[in-house]
Amino acid sequence: MLTKHNVIKIELPNEMIPKYWYNVLSEMKDMPPYLNPQTQKPSEQAELEQILSVECVRQETTTEKYIEIPKEVRDIYRNYRFTPLIRARGLEKLLDTPARIYYKYEGSNATGSHKLNSAVPQAFYNSIEGTKHLTTETGAGQWGSALSMACSFYDLSCDIYMVKCSYEQKPSRRTFMETFGGQVYSSPTNRTLAGREILAKDPNCSGSLGIAISEAMELAATTPGTKYALGSVLNHVLLHQTVIGQEAKQQLEVIDEFPDVVVACTGGGSNFGGMVLPFYEDKLKNPNLRFVAVEPEACPTLTKGKYEFDYSDTGKVGPISKMYTLGSDFMPASIHAGGLRYHGMSPIISKLYNDEMIEAKSYNQFDILKAGLDFAKAECIVPAPESCHAIKAAMDEALKAKEEGKEKVILFCLSGHGYLDLYAYEKFLNGVIPKP
Amino acid sequence: MLTKHNVIKIELPNEMIPKYWYNVLSEMKDMPPYLNPQTQKPSEQAELEQILSVECVRQETTTEKYIEIPKEVRDIYRNYRFTPLIRARGLEKLLDTPARIYYKYEGSNATGSHKLNSAVPQAFYNSIEGTKHLTTETGAGQWGSALSMACSFYDLSCDIYMVKCSYEQKPSRRTFMETFGGQVYSSPTNRTLAGREILAKDPNCSGSLGIAISEAMELAATTPGTKYALGSVLNHVLLHQTVIGQEAKQQLEVIDEFPDVVVACTGGGSNFGGMVLPFYEDKLKNPNLRFVAVEPEACPTLTKGKYEFDYSDTGKVGPISKMYTLGSDFMPASIHAGGLRYHGMSPIISKLYNDEMIEAKSYNQFDILKAGLDFAKAECIVPAPESCHAIKAAMDEALKAKEEGKEKVILFCLSGHGYLDLYAYEKFLNGVIPKP
Repeated sequence: MLTKHNVIKIELPNEMIPKYWYNVLSEMKDMPPYLNPQTQKPSEQAELEQILSVECVRQETTTEKYIEIPKEVRDIYRNYRFTPLIRARGLEKLLDTPARIYYKYEGSNATGSHKLNSAVPQAFYNSIEGTKHLTTETGAGQWGSALSMACSFYDLSCDIYMVKCSYEQKPSRRTFMETFGGQVYSSPTNRTLAGREILAKDPNCSGSLGIAISEAMELAATTPGTKYALGSVLNHVLLHQTVIGQEAKQQLEVIDEFPDVVVACTGGGSNFGGMVLPFYEDKLKNPNLRFVAVEPEACPTLTKGKYEFDYSDTGKVGPISKMYTLGSDFMPASIHAGGLRYHGMSPIISKLYNDEMIEAKSYNQFDILKAGLDFAKAECIVPAPESCHAIKAAMDEALKAKEEGKEKVILFCLSGHGYLDLYAYEKFLNGVIPKP
Repeated sequence: MLTKHNVIKIELPNEMIPKYWYNVLSEMKDMPPYLNPQTQKPSEQAELEQILSVECVRQETTTEKYIEIPKEVRDIYRNYRFTPLIRARGLEKLLDTPARIYYKYEGSNATGSHKLNSAVPQAFYNSIEGTKHLTTETGAGQWGSALSMACSFYDLSCDIYMVKCSYEQKPSRRTFMETFGGQVYSSPTNRTLAGREILAKDPNCSGSLGIAISEAMELAATTPGTKYALGSVLNHVLLHQTVIGQEAKQQLEVIDEFPDVVVACTGGGSNFGGMVLPFYEDKLKNPNLRFVAVEPEACPTLTKGKYEFDYSDTGKVGPISKMYTLGSDFMPASIHAGGLRYHGMSPIISKLYNDEMIEAKSYNQFDILKAGLDFAKAECIVPAPESCHAIKAAMDEALKAKEEGKEKVILFCLSGHGYLDLYAYEKFLNGVIPKP
């Protein structure tokens, strides 16, 4: 029998994957509304439906507790879910810790990250609503890869605005998106008003997620048959990601385990939300259960940002929301964890942080890449630089448990693999990443 | 219930992975011996033990039918095996074929290819025999990645001689090997006699597998505590790979299927052997069962080579064996399927081909990359260029079945993923790969 003492990897038959997404809005009170960027007044549903799928807009505010996952989406989930839950025996040994560390590995699907969990339903809803074409932005390329593939399932075409510095650093990610039929542009481009305005001021602008979002949203708002899809931040994206935490709970139940602390990295909040929100009601019952959000020092949204209404994008095209933010014109340094370089944060995660339901930590690039290499050697998976943030925080929790002589149970999300980010490790190994 | 009609992916609990490797030598008669490269006389066991693990040398000639997989090796196999057996529904739809196509996906482990199946036992046997250090060569980098990781499990250090053109084309593969502690050299080097001789003749030599093997073998033969590990060709490597075909049979049994044709790519023969040899006794009973080996036109060992005694490496350091060969100084064009650029072929596969037990086909680079892109879109896995050869042949078999209106069952091995080979697809998409 599988127990916490002998377990390596917990697999469950894919027939058991969740049938519903868990909607934390059913439990949260007083969520601030979105505001129209021109009028600063609460956005009408119809405004949002101009750029987003109707069903996604509905999911943005509904307070139903469980939302059924369409059969067509589950059929694709079944191709790659359950994702593995793995006991990090190699890492535990390395740290010589009494803690039991588990990680949920979301990099086992073809696109290599958790982003596919939301790309599939977004493409699906758009396809049945008659959308022909989707636009989006991508930083590290994980979301763009996932959406490009998801669009290929439903015969949608897809334009991806890729932050210029990533576009140049990561030709393989670009090729990956093109392989599945996505058209990739180096943002800022001359194809949009927002892009042209930026280029007029700075022809060499290396781009940002905020700019790429403006470009993609502008085209969706102004082109018939075209909608926009976002890979993080919004409530419906976090909703779709709750398959992660729900599965992890099912898997831990098999071996009669429950976490003391749940850890994930945060850029816009989709991975963190997906992992943590299914544990929200447990936290209400047991305040000692801890949730730790981990972000880069170079983009310290939760740890150094302000909780206020701010624009979602640089061009001020998208809705204003109340969130932790560094300002919509904040330009983060070009770090390797390109997926964590967003100036804002999911409104749900922001409110939970403000309500002190979650903790936040930040780490510098040197320390997280070092942790990633230690993890790779101990666990034989090369993690994405984004995921290294969660690894580093989980390692620190395990070391604290050792200091305190406690048998803590640590659960973290390994959001994706790093096969297309090896140049980051190469720089680390070559000593190019500055030691803090 | 899972049947051939509803199946997408067949998974079996990892407790059911094979306990034994299947040794085809138990059934094959009159295998030609290895010859000493100096004396041209049959090699003594002791000669081979100078460079290879003692147990691997024993496995090279034993005629036991089943060889037990050590518990320590199975414990690591359990981390990533069973590998998935997938019904290629997307591909079938694309080809509109009555054939049922199945593929065994060996790219789901951390190193991304089937090579880990032999790297683990080779590193294990060496570690219990007191070896401290392993040397090897790598072309595409898949074998080097696998051996580097396997060495990290058993605290062995590892030097990898990487064919110069791959070393320069694929910095990510190099980083991957370094991540797990392997030391990577661009071959030919000045570190060996064989390398120095080549460089004296041609300082700009872009390397070959034959040269890299000479360098790695030379160091093993001349350095105490050091042995050599090879990723293909030799009998014991094919033996270790038989977990692939054995699992595929178990998985097909679940849905009451049996292949009419089994397809895999061939470089040195380890993937092909691993897939096909467990079906050898079935072929003896049913001569209509077909095995198809697929190789690049640029290195057409089976389809254009001669069956004769030849050197295993350019420097004539290693044993001579009877095999299909293009000559030990053959320099294949620098194609993207770097894993298939070996001048020779496994003696086992060579004998089976000569005995007309297997068929062989060759394809050009344009056609296999096109097939790979079609497959990626249909099945959502980006294949390694090596694996594209098997895909292309399986597609052709499926089209033939369509022509003939037959319900053929096609099984092929998808030996690895192409995340670290995306530059090849980029070149294809940019029109740089010449159309034949």
